[in-house]
Amino acid sequence: MKIGILGTGMVAQALGGRLASLGHDVMIGTRDVAKTLERSEKDAYGNPPFKEWHRDISGVKLEDFAQAAAFGELVINATAGSASLAALDIAGASHLNGKILIDVANPLDFSQGMPPSLFVCNTDSLGEQIQRGFPEVKVVKTLNTINALLMVNPAQVANGDHHIFVSGNDQTAKDKVIGYLKAWFGWKHVIDLGDISSARGTEMILPIWVRLMGALQTPMFNFKILQ
Amino acid sequence: MKIGILGTGMVAQALGGRLASLGHDVMIGTRDVAKTLERSEKDAYGNPPFKEWHRDISGVKLEDFAQAAAFGELVINATAGSASLAALDIAGASHLNGKILIDVANPLDFSQGMPPSLFVCNTDSLGEQIQRGFPEVKVVKTLNTINALLMVNPAQVANGDHHIFVSGNDQTAKDKVIGYLKAWFGWKHVIDLGDISSARGTEMILPIWVRLMGALQTPMFNFKILQ
Repeated sequence: MKIGILGTGMVAQALGGRLASLGHDVMIGTRDVAKTLERSEKDAYGNPPFKEWHRDISGVKLEDFAQAAAFGELVINATAGSASLAALDIAGASHLNGKILIDVANPLDFSQGMPPSLFVCNTDSLGEQIQRGFPEVKVVKTLNTINALLMVNPAQVANGDHHIFVSGNDQTAKDKVIGYLKAWFGWKHVIDLGDISSARGTEMILPIWVRLMGALQTPMFNFKILQ
Repeated sequence: MKIGILGTGMVAQALGGRLASLGHDVMIGTRDVAKTLERSEKDAYGNPPFKEWHRDISGVKLEDFAQAAAFGELVINATAGSASLAALDIAGASHLNGKILIDVANPLDFSQGMPPSLFVCNTDSLGEQIQRGFPEVKVVKTLNTINALLMVNPAQVANGDHHIFVSGNDQTAKDKVIGYLKAWFGWKHVIDLGDISSARGTEMILPIWVRLMGALQTPMFNFKILQ
């Protein structure tokens, strides 16, 4: 499948690398290709610059947001939450309309330092903001409750015996995404939480996720729902 | 132990009944004893009025907020979150100071109907509001991420193999509460999330909890943290 991924950070790299290794035709989209390839400093988490990752991986294209959105039969929003709406505006509704947009971003607000708060929550969510901004796009929120490495390889924790969630207004799109999550990454347990407003629930997991990372001293964990 | 429980709803009943059955000396506190015993209608969830529960259970005293707070060596806030600060004001700092206050309330806002939103979250929490309002009280937030019946009997789900969290500024108080949760109710897995500001994390679980209750069609579930 032709897949466009918006964003160049850890999440985009984890998803892009995994999808390319599965034989998908992946194009990563960024605001400014030349600037993305110029950066030589590590990111805020100490990860190497994008160009080092991109040099070492074969078959992942890098173009601008609009080209990646136009290229993808499916598009993934893996930009920083605070930049997502602007990135999608640049990508262009005409390149996104009618397509599934998997939104994995979180509305993290680092303006007051660590730990981050959320710039939208409770009575709204980033997922809903994107859906309202792009009413003809089939937004499916998922994968935003876990570390990037775990997104694409759930078996790294407890042999994959834990849960992921999907939220979205289009049932057919959600069912397709559930199928992709299982087929591509090996997710065993996917819970459909309902319409896109249920993204409030998964985005609001962030504060406990951050505290759990501190208590457990690792980002490699996830929730299993037991009943 | 002498335990004061503020509130008369499902949560107070579950906790009071269980603690009395363990041999503790339990006093439930309410705003107006006569009115609480007058009520004959079911509550919003269809549960019978307090007086029916109280008539059928032995050894649980009912007095006003101040008397219950003064009575308890340990006090539990099981009022509705929207009424908690007012209830604690009536209970009186002089009756609470120096004591552990287990806060199990959630800041639910039903003013816009169902599902509820939160009246405080993200950059503050009800747990923090209570701690700020009563600086000499040892506030420990816990048990607010599950159904009332599961609070006092975690073995009802997956033989108790799931997690509960504690948040609070006083480590000795938290350690005592962790001991109580294990000894009284049989909790096996308790994670200390940190200071009282980590209550933001557990209170913000509510939105996904409500959606999961809808998806699973039961309130009898909980999260297990796997790493």
